[in-house]
Amino acid sequence: MNAAPTACLLIIGDEILSGRTQDANLKFIGERLAAMGIRLKEARVVPDDPDAIIEAVNTCRAQHSYVFTTGGIGPTHDDITTVCVAKAFGRNVVRNPKAVKVLMEYYGDRANDARLKMTEVPDGPGVELIDNRVTAAPGYRIENVYVLAGIPKIAQAMFEAIAPTLKGGDPVLSNHVDAFIRESEIAADLTDIQAKYPNVSIGSYPSVRDDKFCTSVVARSTDQSAIDAVLADVSDAMRAKGVEPSGGTPS
Amino acid sequence: MNAAPTACLLIIGDEILSGRTQDANLKFIGERLAAMGIRLKEARVVPDDPDAIIEAVNTCRAQHSYVFTTGGIGPTHDDITTVCVAKAFGRNVVRNPKAVKVLMEYYGDRANDARLKMTEVPDGPGVELIDNRVTAAPGYRIENVYVLAGIPKIAQAMFEAIAPTLKGGDPVLSNHVDAFIRESEIAADLTDIQAKYPNVSIGSYPSVRDDKFCTSVVARSTDQSAIDAVLADVSDAMRAKGVEPSGGTPS
Repeated sequence: MNAAPTACLLIIGDEILSGRTQDANLKFIGERLAAMGIRLKEARVVPDDPDAIIEAVNTCRAQHSYVFTTGGIGPTHDDITTVCVAKAFGRNVVRNPKAVKVLMEYYGDRANDARLKMTEVPDGPGVELIDNRVTAAPGYRIENVYVLAGIPKIAQAMFEAIAPTLKGGDPVLSNHVDAFIRESEIAADLTDIQAKYPNVSIGSYPSVRDDKFCTSVVARSTDQSAIDAVLADVSDAMRAKGVEPSGGTPS
Repeated sequence: MNAAPTACLLIIGDEILSGRTQDANLKFIGERLAAMGIRLKEARVVPDDPDAIIEAVNTCRAQHSYVFTTGGIGPTHDDITTVCVAKAFGRNVVRNPKAVKVLMEYYGDRANDARLKMTEVPDGPGVELIDNRVTAAPGYRIENVYVLAGIPKIAQAMFEAIAPTLKGGDPVLSNHVDAFIRESEIAADLTDIQAKYPNVSIGSYPSVRDDKFCTSVVARSTDQSAIDAVLADVSDAMRAKGVEPSGGTPS
């Protein structure tokens, strides 16, 4: 396997930490990156606190190929992502002329200072706007940091706008088998199978379905034949315990 | 305001980062802690990687009053939270006699090595089991680190078991008003109101309801009268723009 590019997601916003809002961007971005062969190695939920945002941006951009942020680029006083990202890079904030043009066309004479705040980006080189087909206010990239909106529909549109520009590794493939069995009954088998296939990451996920304990075993790898071999072994182990596994669609 | 105790949540598991599983513990724990006057200042999603887990535990336990972890304490090979937490504290892992007794009573002669793995905790002082009324396998506390299960139903039961032992500050109260208005139309008012009430944290959250732009303004503080004053001002600002706000139940 080639060393895959890595990524970190910074979810910015007090509303996620207070429990007011259920984050929906991590699952989407995690799935999309995995399919592109980019490993999301870390996600952090960061409060609306300048020091915390600046520290997270600088720590993570040094450690990962890509950093994505969501949230905090709207028009109100609590939207502080851009000023913090700029500070993290030691830069000032400027209104981007192209963004101003797009906003003025979208809002016409309803453009105001709050809306024009959404045209602000860090000054200097390595900054590119990211299209927002939903509400016109753009995201942007600065070096390896991609600043996206928090609203899932907009975050997803922005992600799709940049996806073709991201350099992935071999796509991480996955599949799973499920059975009505407690994971502790096949734990020893899974340990042996994991040892036999070091290039496959085997995850065991328990749940309760129809009031019965269920285990889903997920195999993830860049090698489809290795995934198939793992899941054949897992299925045999489940049958040896007297339960019939159900194969799944790629998970 | 008293300086409130702070907390960090470590969500451990590749399945969250890959997008396979939608985390449901952050929202629950964030809401419960806020009500107890404990500020959840940070959450991190950490992969099933020993170095990453050890680093996150040690960084966060030094910075916060409380650290909660979810995930990775089951019976299978990919459950590595306990061995990592023990390493973070420079300790070995041992089977806890009380946990063994509980597990043996629960499983009887179906107890096996995998199940007994769930009785393992770090060795040494400052370790206490956390009851699990759902499946018997306990969580535990080691100093200021609380190790909980990943399955939401079990994580919640464990959290409720420890909640009475956590020392909170003044509870953070909140309320909100909503209106069918774009947040950029009241952004300037919100900036002024925030400046007028520095002891209230005012958040503005846009959404789309019934195909119309909606803004929810949330006021959070330990001071109920300040929250009421803020939301009265926000309501006036909304009416001045020609929209009628709807008050909400505490959010």
